[in-house]
Amino acid sequence: MDTLKALATRKSVRSFTDEGICFEDIKRILTAGMSGPSCVNMRMWSFVVVRNKELLGKLAVANGIYAAPLRGAALGILVCGDLERIIPEEPDFWVVDASIAAQNMVLAAHDLGIGSVWLGCWPAEDRVQEVKELLKLPETIVPHTILALGYPEKPNMTERDLYESDRVHFDEW
Amino acid sequence: MDTLKALATRKSVRSFTDEGICFEDIKRILTAGMSGPSCVNMRMWSFVVVRNKELLGKLAVANGIYAAPLRGAALGILVCGDLERIIPEEPDFWVVDASIAAQNMVLAAHDLGIGSVWLGCWPAEDRVQEVKELLKLPETIVPHTILALGYPEKPNMTERDLYESDRVHFDEW
Repeated sequence: MDTLKALATRKSVRSFTDEGICFEDIKRILTAGMSGPSCVNMRMWSFVVVRNKELLGKLAVANGIYAAPLRGAALGILVCGDLERIIPEEPDFWVVDASIAAQNMVLAAHDLGIGSVWLGCWPAEDRVQEVKELLKLPETIVPHTILALGYPEKPNMTERDLYESDRVHFDEW
Repeated sequence: MDTLKALATRKSVRSFTDEGICFEDIKRILTAGMSGPSCVNMRMWSFVVVRNKELLGKLAVANGIYAAPLRGAALGILVCGDLERIIPEEPDFWVVDASIAAQNMVLAAHDLGIGSVWLGCWPAEDRVQEVKELLKLPETIVPHTILALGYPEKPNMTERDLYESDRVHFDEW
């Protein structure tokens, strides 16, 4: 699908069919996640792909009420920051790297006909801790965002124009 | 251009031709920025489009050494967080909204044949303050990311495979 069309038709999907996602498409989505710009090319992320249904249910509990779509998802992808890769001058830039990775995956999935919803984890400290414990993450790996992914029950291909001119300023405020 | 191709061929562009970007394309890029997922749909961002050459030079100084590509750019787009739109329970989610907006714009630009480089501002406190003063931003508007945009001197259409299997874990770490 054309990129501008993908950008304009993407909508969060919270309700999925039972169809699974093949490994080839999972890899395509992850590759997109690894293809974004990254602070001094440090690529400060790691990914946990959750396919086990029982674990998806537990992940939905760990990440709070908005994470319920994980229960019906084909899989979840947790994007983590990797603190062993951060640059000491700016230790928080990993947050941006992780966001870029997640959004690239949202768009790649949409292009493949796969719906997703973005479930924020970081910086909600309780969610970060719960998810970290559940998935047995090392100390230096910080959960940032979970994507719930699956084939949408109602695919959206309607382009939305979400431009708001009053949110744009030219040259100075 | 196909979305997966756009994701795989995007490369940071730091050297631009003298060609300007028409207003229609600026608006397409901004629309993409406003089309990403947003925490409880609060759309916690604002944008400052900098076209004035003298101001671009000053912005390059304000945002530190890596911001030099702004000097030769057709324009810069500053993505800001809007603290008047944040949700009190999670005051830092604006950081993710702003990152999503910027990455959507990077991809829309690439699709239009326009190159960009992502220049991190937040959370570098000195850059945040300098940029805020230069562009006369209100107290509640926080500079997050600057994109330098322009037509690339050497457009890249080579697909890169940046997948690293050791950065992916399945079900548990």
